[in-house]
Amino acid sequence: MKLLEDRIRKDGVVKPGNIVKIDKFLNHQIDVKFLDELGAEFYRLFKDSGVTKLMTIEASGIAIACLAALHFDVPVIFAKKNKTKNIADEVYKTRVFSYTHGVFYDVIVSKEFLRKGDKVLLIDDVLANGKALLGLVDLCDQAGAEVVGAGIVMEKTFQPGRQIMEEKGIRVESLARISHIDDGKITFVGE
Amino acid sequence: MKLLEDRIRKDGVVKPGNIVKIDKFLNHQIDVKFLDELGAEFYRLFKDSGVTKLMTIEASGIAIACLAALHFDVPVIFAKKNKTKNIADEVYKTRVFSYTHGVFYDVIVSKEFLRKGDKVLLIDDVLANGKALLGLVDLCDQAGAEVVGAGIVMEKTFQPGRQIMEEKGIRVESLARISHIDDGKITFVGE
Repeated sequence: MKLLEDRIRKDGVVKPGNIVKIDKFLNHQIDVKFLDELGAEFYRLFKDSGVTKLMTIEASGIAIACLAALHFDVPVIFAKKNKTKNIADEVYKTRVFSYTHGVFYDVIVSKEFLRKGDKVLLIDDVLANGKALLGLVDLCDQAGAEVVGAGIVMEKTFQPGRQIMEEKGIRVESLARISHIDDGKITFVGE
Repeated sequence: MKLLEDRIRKDGVVKPGNIVKIDKFLNHQIDVKFLDELGAEFYRLFKDSGVTKLMTIEASGIAIACLAALHFDVPVIFAKKNKTKNIADEVYKTRVFSYTHGVFYDVIVSKEFLRKGDKVLLIDDVLANGKALLGLVDLCDQAGAEVVGAGIVMEKTFQPGRQIMEEKGIRVESLARISHIDDGKITFVGE
């Protein structure tokens, strides 16, 4: 998606370790009108998949999932990273490694909101190693819900996330695909 | 807002300690079309305040802030609860006590996104003790940004949050105001 590639090139900040910060429009400050355009594109890609729910993980996936959900007209559920006393005991749980924070954490979703018969589109901001998405797939498997695909804002194709998802038979659509980063310069697939 | 009071009465779950879970449409599963209506109401209330940014705190404020921001046509910024290596050093920081989790945590916002001259509308899902909002006010004070008000989805009027905000001269608008909870039954102000 040219619009997004241009925005990442303009506003993305490359950090050591091939990290691309998109804090200016998605991960800290949020440009909601722009995310609405990305949401429309996810809808174009997945509108024939019978999606009944969008699912993401707190916190940085929530904004894009909500803006996309307006187009699909289905609810969002976001998996939570910690068990709080506000969450019922009736949850599915999985364990995810965060490369960002360097720790494992438990991820939960209430059994009330994820059920057999649901056709779930996973939404996330970044696909790199795929650990967060794998956790969401595991939660859907536990619930007997079907994962119809994964909609990603920014993919780093030089990391194994897509391959891991595709080996599980999951369709992955990324709106911007970074093929490599050299000396702070971002190159997208096809350039 | 009658629509919201009805929804809280229908879908809210009262837990020990006067906790009202609104996980079914806001805090875990998100009804985006409904939140869009709440966002329109925030816009009606604050449209003459010259708002340049909506500000909330991760994670449960992000959804309602994004849906409201579509009406204001301004960016959202969400304060983050932990310093990660993806965040620049240039941040404002404050400390907030969470009654939900029973711990203090640091809350940060990048200096890049909150500046002198900003007119900030704070948005949050619940106002009870007001600790999270106070933290956001402190971040705005550090930045020299002006807080034009606080838009709250659900207020518990029997806890001190509103009073604390109003003593700081901050206008608080809550779309549903719970006056008391008895035996699991919710009563709103004016009933």
